[in-house]
Amino acid sequence: MKRYLETIKREEAIKVISSFASPIEEEETIPTWDSVGRITSRAVYARFSSPAFICAAMDGYAVDFKDTLDADVNNPLTISKNNAFYVNTGDPLPKGTNAVIMIEDIEELSSSIIIRRPVYLWQNIRMIGEDIIESDMVIPKNHLITPYDMGMIISAGIKEINVRRRPRLLIIPTGKELIDIFDKNGILLKKGHLIDFNSYTIMKLAQKIGFETKRHGIIREKKELEEIFNNLIEEFDVIIINAGTSSGTEDYTEEIIRKKGKIIFHGVSMMPGKPTIFGIVKEKFVFGIPGYPVSATLSFKMFLEPLYERLTGVKRFYEEEEVITAFKIPSRIGIEEIIRVNIVSKDNSYFAIPLPRGASIFSSMARADGLIFIPENVEGFDEGEKIKCTLLKSRPYLKKRINLIGSHDIVLDILRDIIRERYSEYDFMATPTGSLSGIIALKRGITSLCTTHILDEVEKIYNIPLIKKYLNDTPCILINLAKRIQGLIVQKGNPKRIKGIEDLIREDIVFVNRQFGSGTRILFDTILKEKGIKKLDIKGYDREEASHTAVAIMVKESIADVAMGIFSVAKIFSLDFIPLGEEDFDLLVSKDFYHDEKFKMLMEIIESDEFKQRLLYIGGYKVSDTGKIKFEQ
Amino acid sequence: MKRYLETIKREEAIKVISSFASPIEEEETIPTWDSVGRITSRAVYARFSSPAFICAAMDGYAVDFKDTLDADVNNPLTISKNNAFYVNTGDPLPKGTNAVIMIEDIEELSSSIIIRRPVYLWQNIRMIGEDIIESDMVIPKNHLITPYDMGMIISAGIKEINVRRRPRLLIIPTGKELIDIFDKNGILLKKGHLIDFNSYTIMKLAQKIGFETKRHGIIREKKELEEIFNNLIEEFDVIIINAGTSSGTEDYTEEIIRKKGKIIFHGVSMMPGKPTIFGIVKEKFVFGIPGYPVSATLSFKMFLEPLYERLTGVKRFYEEEEVITAFKIPSRIGIEEIIRVNIVSKDNSYFAIPLPRGASIFSSMARADGLIFIPENVEGFDEGEKIKCTLLKSRPYLKKRINLIGSHDIVLDILRDIIRERYSEYDFMATPTGSLSGIIALKRGITSLCTTHILDEVEKIYNIPLIKKYLNDTPCILINLAKRIQGLIVQKGNPKRIKGIEDLIREDIVFVNRQFGSGTRILFDTILKEKGIKKLDIKGYDREEASHTAVAIMVKESIADVAMGIFSVAKIFSLDFIPLGEEDFDLLVSKDFYHDEKFKMLMEIIESDEFKQRLLYIGGYKVSDTGKIKFEQ
Repeated sequence: MKRYLETIKREEAIKVISSFASPIEEEETIPTWDSVGRITSRAVYARFSSPAFICAAMDGYAVDFKDTLDADVNNPLTISKNNAFYVNTGDPLPKGTNAVIMIEDIEELSSSIIIRRPVYLWQNIRMIGEDIIESDMVIPKNHLITPYDMGMIISAGIKEINVRRRPRLLIIPTGKELIDIFDKNGILLKKGHLIDFNSYTIMKLAQKIGFETKRHGIIREKKELEEIFNNLIEEFDVIIINAGTSSGTEDYTEEIIRKKGKIIFHGVSMMPGKPTIFGIVKEKFVFGIPGYPVSATLSFKMFLEPLYERLTGVKRFYEEEEVITAFKIPSRIGIEEIIRVNIVSKDNSYFAIPLPRGASIFSSMARADGLIFIPENVEGFDEGEKIKCTLLKSRPYLKKRINLIGSHDIVLDILRDIIRERYSEYDFMATPTGSLSGIIALKRGITSLCTTHILDEVEKIYNIPLIKKYLNDTPCILINLAKRIQGLIVQKGNPKRIKGIEDLIREDIVFVNRQFGSGTRILFDTILKEKGIKKLDIKGYDREEASHTAVAIMVKESIADVAMGIFSVAKIFSLDFIPLGEEDFDLLVSKDFYHDEKFKMLMEIIESDEFKQRLLYIGGYKVSDTGKIKFEQ
Repeated sequence: MKRYLETIKREEAIKVISSFASPIEEEETIPTWDSVGRITSRAVYARFSSPAFICAAMDGYAVDFKDTLDADVNNPLTISKNNAFYVNTGDPLPKGTNAVIMIEDIEELSSSIIIRRPVYLWQNIRMIGEDIIESDMVIPKNHLITPYDMGMIISAGIKEINVRRRPRLLIIPTGKELIDIFDKNGILLKKGHLIDFNSYTIMKLAQKIGFETKRHGIIREKKELEEIFNNLIEEFDVIIINAGTSSGTEDYTEEIIRKKGKIIFHGVSMMPGKPTIFGIVKEKFVFGIPGYPVSATLSFKMFLEPLYERLTGVKRFYEEEEVITAFKIPSRIGIEEIIRVNIVSKDNSYFAIPLPRGASIFSSMARADGLIFIPENVEGFDEGEKIKCTLLKSRPYLKKRINLIGSHDIVLDILRDIIRERYSEYDFMATPTGSLSGIIALKRGITSLCTTHILDEVEKIYNIPLIKKYLNDTPCILINLAKRIQGLIVQKGNPKRIKGIEDLIREDIVFVNRQFGSGTRILFDTILKEKGIKKLDIKGYDREEASHTAVAIMVKESIADVAMGIFSVAKIFSLDFIPLGEEDFDLLVSKDFYHDEKFKMLMEIIESDEFKQRLLYIGGYKVSDTGKIKFEQ
């Protein structure tokens, strides 16, 4: 069995990679109009001055300034059109003239003009080389060309420009289990098949920074991979093999690189992304990057982006911002951890809320607003710590976005969809943390909005008792989003004949639970207590999932027999449902935000027929109280 | 004669344009892998869960967790390979298993495995839908797709996606004087010709934000433009005519829009960019934008970018930063002025240094780091005011860049070229303000570096007396960059037989001066004083240019007969030169920056043979003292 003998630190790994790389010296000569985004391979010098001759800066009459000296308001001066010549802006000055009188300052007659003030030498004239002077260095070497640069280079009369050849990258997806959904044969997603999306994601990330890319078809056998090294390596500067970098029986990436060239390192002390391999084969850079999608993209970002900089001579810059941790973020000592976060912009602070850490949870990469790095000698961050965060989204976007923390419901997806449909400038991010964390975040001022559905055991009322207890000093308003029907989700046809919550202690029944702090979990625990059922008697009570849909799919796939959840989700998955009651899915808003323009927009949507109709269409919701204020303090 | 009857305010103009626009509802169905940068036309729902089945999250052995319960460190447990099955990460779980034991925790025998601790239910397992759940809304409507989003959509099994059709833009350069340097016939840059680069710049700016673009060939006659409206307008959503929007005799853009459709406004109260026309022809958006390149691109940015947002339903976000004005920035009441600025990042502040304002100085658009807006009811900003600036470059880039303010010399271009060649992460920006402004900026803490060549009239020493006088409380170090040969630049063959500075008062001689505060100007004025020559006796004394090259080109083009300047520039332009003496072109560095890593890098270059050799190659420089510390306080 193979294991990592030793790992290298991330910063060290970048240095090692850089030590093998230098800018690609091959040049391409391309038309200037096609040079945006390319990098100059040598300084660019102006061929012509811009403008290339003296010309009129205004529409008007070109004259010799000496002919105008006697004009004043009380003594209008007449100049013959033999000595004054009409020019449009940009026209060259006629011989003998050296100033232009603006058309607005002239009274025009058929063969002469009348003026009421003199012009001075060179007035309203554009000088030769006013913008660019012949033989000036317009752009230095190793410069990334912008559209403005391109315009300037063209204006200097330069038709063709020398740029560095783009680094060429080959991406090879490997794995017996992979399928390509873009294959002509269509999708055959059988048990054991995995859709290859890493190679496409990396291809697009690579193209975005400037690599010329080729994605190879999926490689399913070791032999095929060997052949690529024999045949294709000459054509590329960099090769990425994804994946086969771990210690499984089919992980042959290291073996092949070693056979064809040299392994420089295998294993980086970072998570996700640890099983990264770097090697040199025939002076080309070869990477083996992990199979888990988050690991694969982070490995690309951490190592291939710096390599690109080395190969082109141009550094790329990343935006960083100081963020405050909204919750405690624990981390293991001994390995650097890279955490995806959502960022809530509030007042003048940015709060970071950690997203799911699993290397396989790629959706959290798409959702992420930033990355934070927990060094290997740090046991994580406490809540309220100020730390650096690499931004993946722009600050103005984050400042405009409406953020919500709390309980998850499809209602929130619909809300977002309608917001995006109606308002180009607003986006909406609901970070699912469960009801209780949402309320705590609102109390701490991290969010202005949370969703909650927590039943008070004693009063049998949703949310209000809890708000009074936890948020007694926080001015806020509670608004109903929808009433949801909660119950037991069971398999289609209810094969285990579950009739109620009492059946959950049966030996043949496996349950799947919701996470601690979620409203559904609190409701479930309340019912158990009422009925006198012991938690430990329920098999699967300790298996927690973070959303309604997550537990429903487990029932659908017969991994569990029953879960507690809402009707709408049971309906989507064609599962059976045993209603246990109605609950209030409420929106809690801090009072200062209630009067904000953004919230008014949100309320308009919540009160709209479109929103209510879409909820009713899904089913399992009642909208009789939707948009109503239930409580205010 | 046509005039603007009334202008509309910029903000108002944007509102008016937006009021005519709504998102393009036409959809395109495209392969998901090609969807990065496109905008969804409807919400995207997951086709499959990801993963689509329960699978191993680790390499190891899949077991029924109940079979492992008795294992502990003191009582290793043997499990037969009939009940424990090897799995690689991602493999589906064999029937009857519900947990995976990591390979690292196993002792493997030929027909059994030995374990020393139990696993729990679902340990080391990836659940169905752990990442994405079938039928979940993956992406809402009107969402700009990132590479991560694309990966996520593919992982949800979606091969094709519905996106909005891109808005189609036609750019029509017009003007009798325009030439296209990419035409097959090559360049015929005669007097009166102007290179068309606006249309290419706008094309690239438009492509970058997402327009589908077509650049029409240059239109030279009114009739041709009319034909376009008849033939091509159906194919496009937006048409830009550049230019012909002003009041010259060939400005027929308004006339044609009016004839074919309706003018909505002509003239915006902003500068540059005032002569902007907006009209509607056959329900298409038609813009006439000004001919001056800065006006053209600003008009595009101000009006076409917001229109793009309306046509796609997605707002673009621009970075803003608070900057401190380094110098006073005057502005006219009655029109909003848009000023290009360089931004110097120093300590925790950003200082804005205004760039040349001329609408024809396009190079300053390429150099600009940001734009500031002076409202029409404000008479400009004082030095030291805090104002908002729209960033055109990123903060991390600005923070890394080395900035210098002061006197201009080719030496600085060479310095930048070498920096860019050697260091991917550093750039260098020399903002030309003349020696004195540079010294004042250093005194005020706006810059750590300035260049200066100011002669003290009394002591006949360069720079040091001035530094003692102005910067007596500023710790700084003065380093020689080069000795330059200063003198009179005259036309080739010296047709006017100029022998020395005394000839400048001759009636037949036109001089061109350098700007006030520049070292060359001070040297010139000192020599005049010594020789007892009156400034007013010199024709052209009041015509100021901001660089050595600018005055040289005026001599070359016979606009002036003589200018004061350095030998190297005379040589580049093949002009004759009458030496008047040597001067010190020095670098002044504040003491805190002297010990900075960036400055050490700069000094390494200044002291390098490459730098000195390149100066000697140009000629007119002496490098005997280059890199030497001349003075320290």
